[in-house]
Amino acid sequence: MAGIVLGDNEYGKAETHVVRVTRNGAAHEIKDLNVSIALAGDFAETHLTGDNSKVVPTDTQKNTVFAFAHDGIGEAEDFGLRLANHFVQEFESVHRARVSIEEFAWARLAGHAFERTGEATRLTIVTSTRAGSSVVSGITGLVVLKTTDSEFHGFIKDRYTTLPETRDRIMATSVTARWRYGGDHAEWGRCFDTAVARLKQTFGQQDSLSLQSTLYEMGKAVLEACPEVVEIRLTMPNKHHFVVDLKPFGLDNPNEVFYAADRPYGLIEGTVRREGMPEHHEAW
Amino acid sequence: MAGIVLGDNEYGKAETHVVRVTRNGAAHEIKDLNVSIALAGDFAETHLTGDNSKVVPTDTQKNTVFAFAHDGIGEAEDFGLRLANHFVQEFESVHRARVSIEEFAWARLAGHAFERTGEATRLTIVTSTRAGSSVVSGITGLVVLKTTDSEFHGFIKDRYTTLPETRDRIMATSVTARWRYGGDHAEWGRCFDTAVARLKQTFGQQDSLSLQSTLYEMGKAVLEACPEVVEIRLTMPNKHHFVVDLKPFGLDNPNEVFYAADRPYGLIEGTVRREGMPEHHEAW
Amino acid sequence: MAGIVLGDNEYGKAETHVVRVTRNGAAHEIKDLNVSIALAGDFAETHLTGDNSKVVPTDTQKNTVFAFAHDGIGEAEDFGLRLANHFVQEFESVHRARVSIEEFAWARLAGHAFERTGEATRLTIVTSTRAGSSVVSGITGLVVLKTTDSEFHGFIKDRYTTLPETRDRIMATSVTARWRYGGDHAEWGRCFDTAVARLKQTFGQQDSLSLQSTLYEMGKAVLEACPEVVEIRLTMPNKHHFVVDLKPFGLDNPNEVFYAADRPYGLIEGTVRREGMPEHHEAW
Amino acid sequence: MAGIVLGDNEYGKAETHVVRVTRNGAAHEIKDLNVSIALAGDFAETHLTGDNSKVVPTDTQKNTVFAFAHDGIGEAEDFGLRLANHFVQEFESVHRARVSIEEFAWARLAGHAFERTGEATRLTIVTSTRAGSSVVSGITGLVVLKTTDSEFHGFIKDRYTTLPETRDRIMATSVTARWRYGGDHAEWGRCFDTAVARLKQTFGQQDSLSLQSTLYEMGKAVLEACPEVVEIRLTMPNKHHFVVDLKPFGLDNPNEVFYAADRPYGLIEGTVRREGMPEHHEAW
Repeated sequence: MAGIVLGDNEYGKAETHVVRVTRNGAAHEIKDLNVSIALAGDFAETHLTGDNSKVVPTDTQKNTVFAFAHDGIGEAEDFGLRLANHFVQEFESVHRARVSIEEFAWARLAGHAFERTGEATRLTIVTSTRAGSSVVSGITGLVVLKTTDSEFHGFIKDRYTTLPETRDRIMATSVTARWRYGGDHAEWGRCFDTAVARLKQTFGQQDSLSLQSTLYEMGKAVLEACPEVVEIRLTMPNKHHFVVDLKPFGLDNPNEVFYAADRPYGLIEGTVRREGMPEHHEAW
Repeated sequence: MAGIVLGDNEYGKAETHVVRVTRNGAAHEIKDLNVSIALAGDFAETHLTGDNSKVVPTDTQKNTVFAFAHDGIGEAEDFGLRLANHFVQEFESVHRARVSIEEFAWARLAGHAFERTGEATRLTIVTSTRAGSSVVSGITGLVVLKTTDSEFHGFIKDRYTTLPETRDRIMATSVTARWRYGGDHAEWGRCFDTAVARLKQTFGQQDSLSLQSTLYEMGKAVLEACPEVVEIRLTMPNKHHFVVDLKPFGLDNPNEVFYAADRPYGLIEGTVRREGMPEHHEAW
Repeated sequence: MAGIVLGDNEYGKAETHVVRVTRNGAAHEIKDLNVSIALAGDFAETHLTGDNSKVVPTDTQKNTVFAFAHDGIGEAEDFGLRLANHFVQEFESVHRARVSIEEFAWARLAGHAFERTGEATRLTIVTSTRAGSSVVSGITGLVVLKTTDSEFHGFIKDRYTTLPETRDRIMATSVTARWRYGGDHAEWGRCFDTAVARLKQTFGQQDSLSLQSTLYEMGKAVLEACPEVVEIRLTMPNKHHFVVDLKPFGLDNPNEVFYAADRPYGLIEGTVRREGMPEHHEAW
Repeated sequence: MAGIVLGDNEYGKAETHVVRVTRNGAAHEIKDLNVSIALAGDFAETHLTGDNSKVVPTDTQKNTVFAFAHDGIGEAEDFGLRLANHFVQEFESVHRARVSIEEFAWARLAGHAFERTGEATRLTIVTSTRAGSSVVSGITGLVVLKTTDSEFHGFIKDRYTTLPETRDRIMATSVTARWRYGGDHAEWGRCFDTAVARLKQTFGQQDSLSLQSTLYEMGKAVLEACPEVVEIRLTMPNKHHFVVDLKPFGLDNPNEVFYAADRPYGLIEGTVRREGMPEHHEAW
C-alpha cells in the first residue's frame, strides 16, 4: 500500500462578528461585519507531530480583527486587504490568507438609531499571498421575482418528461453573485452599488427564455457596467411557483394564484467573464 | 386512578404559501402570504374512536386558501377574516377557527418585477367563533439598534452579580410586536404603517434606562397613535453587543469596537393595554 | 380615551448553554444544557420610570446558572427547581420564576469521549412561586414514521375537498410532547425514559384512523405508564409523504415511491389528562 | 474592452426528497434520500440565445429520480451511479453529471415503524462523464466531544495573542468527512460503516496536540482501514467550550463548568491521501 500523506489544508477563525461605531457628533455610523479567516501554508507539522510552532492561533486571528477595527473599518474590501496582508506579511508560515466578510446593511432611523434592512448581504473575499492579492465582492440573498416575461419551451423531451412548455410563468430566484476584480484597488462601494443596480435592472427588463439566459444577461450587464470586474459567478436557484389547479372548485386560474414551493428547486450556476483574461481559481 | 380524558385540542393546515398576482395592465401587483389554519371544536370522536365524520381535512383547508385567493387577497386581515368565518359558518363541528398569516413584502423593481425587501414580516392572527371575530396584527423581525442613549444601572446586586453599571451602551433588539384591535373593522394597512412607524420612532428617540422602559414606551406609542388598538404585546430579545477589551493590544476602546454575541441573550416580554378593556386570551 | 397601563410582563436570560463535566477517574460524565430563565413579579417601575432597583439583571441570571452548575447538575428537573426556587426565595420582587431547559444527549465513545446522539432533545420547564413549584418535562424532535397501518377516511367532503380517502398511507411526524407532573418530586429520569418508550411503542403499534387518534393513544399510554404525570400535551405535525404518480412513465406505484413534502403540513395539537385534576395554565 | 464570454456553468434539480418503501412481508424497509443533480456540458445556447434544444429540464431530472426509485434504491452510491450514468449516456449535450445524495438514517421501532436517528447524515457524490465515474462518500454532522486528552501549546505569540497555553481542554467538533474511492465498485455500506467507526474511535483515543493533529489521525485511520479509499477530506469546526471563571463567586472551576460558544469558531480543513495517486478535482 502506498504511503499516506497530508494534502491541502487550511485553518482559521470563522464568523467573528464585529460591530464598529464611529461617533462623529450626533450622527453615528456603524459597520456590521461577520469576518472569517482561513490561512494556508507551512502547517504540516501541527498535523503530523502536533508541533504548533508555526501556528497562529485562531484566537489571535479573532483578536486581530477586533484590534484592526480600532482604526476603523472603511470598505469591507479594504478591511479584508489589511487583514489578509497582515497575516502573509507577518508570519513566514502563512503563504496564503483568505478573509471572507459578510456585511449587513443598516438604515438610519435617527441620528444614532438604525434599522437592519433586509437588503441582501454584501460579500467580500480577499485572498493574499506574498505575490499579491485578489479581491472578489458580491451579494447573496437578493430575492427577486417577475410575474411575466418569462418563458420556457423547446427543451428536450424524453420518456420522463411531463413538464408542459410555457410562454408565461413566474420566475423567482435568490441571487448570489460574486465578481472578481482585475486588481486590488477600486472604488469598492461604487462598484458594488453599480453591480447590484445592474443585476436588478437586468432581471426586471429581460424577456427571459430560460433562467440560464437571465443569469447570463445579468452577469454580462455587470461586466459592461464595471470595467474593474473581470469575471462574475452567479448562483440562482429557480424558486418554483406553480399555478394552482382551481378547476375542481369551478374556478379558472389565468396565472393568478400560485403555490410557492420549497423543494425541490432548480439550481442554475454560471460564470461570465472577459475573454482572454487569466483565470484565478484560488480567488473564490 | 382517575379516568383519562381528552383536553384542549386543535388541528389545521400550517404554512400554505400562496402568491397572488393581480394583472392590471403592465403594473402587476403581488401578495405573498404564508397561511396557517387551526380549528377547534367538536373533534373528540376522531381522537377517541377515529370517527372522522366531523373532521374538515387539512388538505381541504389548503384548497380553501387557494380558492379564496382566486377572488383576490386584499389586506391580510380581511383575507384571514374571510377564511376564519368560512370555517365556523360552514361546519357545525368547527367552534373556533384561527387563521395566522405571515405576509412578506416586495418592492417593485419594474412594472412586473419585484424585489423581496428585508423589511420585517407582517403578521395577522384572526380568531373567529360564531359569536364574532378578533383581529391581532403585528410585525416580527424588526431589527433595530442604537449606539447611544441607552443606560442600565441601579439594579439589584447579589453575590452572583458581575455586570458593571453603564451610562452608555449599544442597545439592539429584534422586535416582535402584536397588537389586538378592539373590533373587526379597521383600515388595516394604515394602522400597520402607523404602528410600525411609531415603534421605530420611539425606539430611536427614547433615552432608555432599561430595555423594559423602551418596550413600554414603544407599546404606549402605538396605543396613542392607533385608537383602534386596545392591547399590544412586545417580545424584545436583548441582542448583546459587548465592548471588546483592546487594552492587551495597547489600544483604548471608547465604545467603538463591539463583539455582537449570539447566545445567551436577554428576553424581555411585556404587554401594554388600555385600562378597563376586557382581555381576550383566545385572540393571541 | 382610557388610560394606558402595563399588563403582563416577564424577562430573563435565554439560552445559557452550560456543559458540566464530572471527573470520576477515567470515565467522565457530561451534562449539556441550554437554560432559559424568565422572571415575573414586581417589575412595573423599570417599565414605567426606568427605576431598576427591583431588577435582577439577566447577566446575573446567567452567572447563577454557571455557579449552580459548580455543585453538579443532576437531573435537569432538579437543576431547574434549584434555580427557580433560588430566584423566588432570594428576591422579593420575583413572584414567579420559570426555568426552561433543553438537554442534549451524548453517548459515550470511550472513557472521556462522547458522540452527540440525534435523539430528540429532552425538555424541562419548572415554574416556581412562593406557593410552590410545578414541573413539566418532555421531548421535542422525536421523528417517527410508519409505512402502513395508517388510514384516513370518512371525513367531511365539501366543494373544496379533493383529498381521496385512503386505507393505507405513510404517517410521519415530529413529536413534541410535554407532560406535567402532579408534584415536584419524581424519579425524573426513569419517568422520562418510560414516557418516551411508551410514545414510540404506541406510535408503532396502533392502527391509526387519524393522526388525532394516534396522538390521543400516545398521550393516554404515557398517563397509564406514569402515575406521577397528570397531563400531557402533544404537538404532532403531519409530515406528508405523497405517493408519486409514475403512470406517465409506464410504471405502477403500489405505495412504494413517495415524495416527502416540506410545506404545507398538517399540525395536530392535543391534550390528554386525568379526569378531575386541577388545571395549571401557568405551568406550561 | 475585451469580449464577454460564458465560462463554466452547470444546472440541475436540487433536493428531490424521495422516500422508498420496500414491503417484504411485515418488516418493511425504508430509504430516505435527498437527491441533487447538476449537469454540465453543451449548454451555451440556452445562456446566449435562449435556445433550449439541448436542455434536459430540471423537472425531468426530478421525475427520473422518482422513476428510478421504482426499481429500488439500494446503496446510495449505486443509485447515484445509475442516475449520473443515465444522464451522460442518454443525452449528448450532457458531458458531466453530478449526483449528490444525503441519506437520513432510520432505526426500526417495530415491523413497519421507524424512528429517525440523530446519527449524522450519510453523503454521496457521484460524478460521471462518458470516460467514467468517480465516487465520493462521507458523513456530515457527526458531533463529538472529549473532556480531556486535548492540549494546545507551543504556538506563535505576537502582539495580538492573549490565548493561554493549555495542557487540558475540552475538544468538540462537528465532523464532515468525505472520502474518494479509487474506483466505482466497492462494498459501499461496509466501507461507510468502517470509515465512520474509525473516525469515532480515533477521535476518542488520540492524545490531541491540536485539532489539526486529530484531523490528520482521523483521516489516516480511514485510509488504513479502507483500501478502496484513496483520499479523504475533513472539515472540523473547533466548537469552543470556555472554562467559566467562577472566582467572583468564591468558587473554583477545575475544568468542570464550561460555556459552549456558538461564534466565532475555529475552522480546520484538511486532506489526507495516498501518496502518488492522481488527484481528481472534479470529483468533489
